[in-house]
Amino acid sequence: MPHINLPEGYPGISAGFTYRPETAKPMRELADILLHQPNSLTPGERELIATFVSSRNCTTFCALSHGAAAANHLGDASVVEKVKADFVSAPISPKLKALLVIAGKVQQDGKLVTESDVLAARTLGATDLEIHDTVLIAAAFSMFNRYVDGLGTIQPTNPDMYAQMGKHLAEEGYTKPSIRQPVSSL
Amino acid sequence: MPHINLPEGYPGISAGFTYRPETAKPMRELADILLHQPNSLTPGERELIATFVSSRNCTTFCALSHGAAAANHLGDASVVEKVKADFVSAPISPKLKALLVIAGKVQQDGKLVTESDVLAARTLGATDLEIHDTVLIAAAFSMFNRYVDGLGTIQPTNPDMYAQMGKHLAEEGYTKPSIRQPVSSL
Repeated sequence: MPHINLPEGYPGISAGFTYRPETAKPMRELADILLHQPNSLTPGERELIATFVSSRNCTTFCALSHGAAAANHLGDASVVEKVKADFVSAPISPKLKALLVIAGKVQQDGKLVTESDVLAARTLGATDLEIHDTVLIAAAFSMFNRYVDGLGTIQPTNPDMYAQMGKHLAEEGYTKPSIRQPVSSL
Repeated sequence: MPHINLPEGYPGISAGFTYRPETAKPMRELADILLHQPNSLTPGERELIATFVSSRNCTTFCALSHGAAAANHLGDASVVEKVKADFVSAPISPKLKALLVIAGKVQQDGKLVTESDVLAARTLGATDLEIHDTVLIAAAFSMFNRYVDGLGTIQPTNPDMYAQMGKHLAEEGYTKPSIRQPVSSL
């Protein structure tokens, strides 16, 4: 049960966004730039970073919704599960693995990122902007995850809801509400 | 030394903001709503929450800049030091202490916030919006702190620089750059 009187029937972050549209606006815009707008990292790669951080933070709603968005972009849900379980052996590029090492450290504490982590990513082809955006995606999901969990939002586990949400996020991005109507049955 | 080629002479988050203005814009707007725009929590109280979270995350730049902003609003720098050292015995309201308990849990993991933490804050007069904003300030600084640390930004400890920055932030808010010119000597 949510800790405060959030609007009923909205899962996860959509409850907080509906409750406080003023703060929702810049949060949506930040997510859209980081995950949806053009970038040399594909949307699928960026959604995998978001999913990985959310999974490490054990935030069900974010891990499942961004996992569904990643699966939609990549056309393969099994990659998402493999990245969550053990990204080192997952069928993704060496560059993305090096970026996930950085993201995993930022998820814990930004100070853990070392020069050699960054050099490893750069050697595998990562640009400065890609390293910057990886750090910021991991930092931003440290916020989104804590917001969703800290408000005690309802976090369903219904795969159909997330599949629909993932399709919407992959196609439309983050500046339009992903759930246009309250979910009648959670 | 920063991990990527950030513009020289900009301390802390201003280096990341200058490097990537697209993401800086919504991040500045979020900070402005949470810390500067009208709210039933005073700007000094909200800056204390931001300072407390940044101090717990050991992010020098954010702890000192928001500490300076809080001191400017409150007209008393000693309160800031007392909140950082032991907020339970600090000369702040019981309501703010209850909100700092919530913020301290969100700083670790949003799932640690309990119904009794929220009930305690509510009993001491906290509104739902104040509880929401406390959760989101703590979540947002979990992002800002990781961004500053994860990029390996330069974080000076010069008190004069932070005093000037704190005055600017307290008076002007967050949508205008707090450092208009690169700091020539860090």
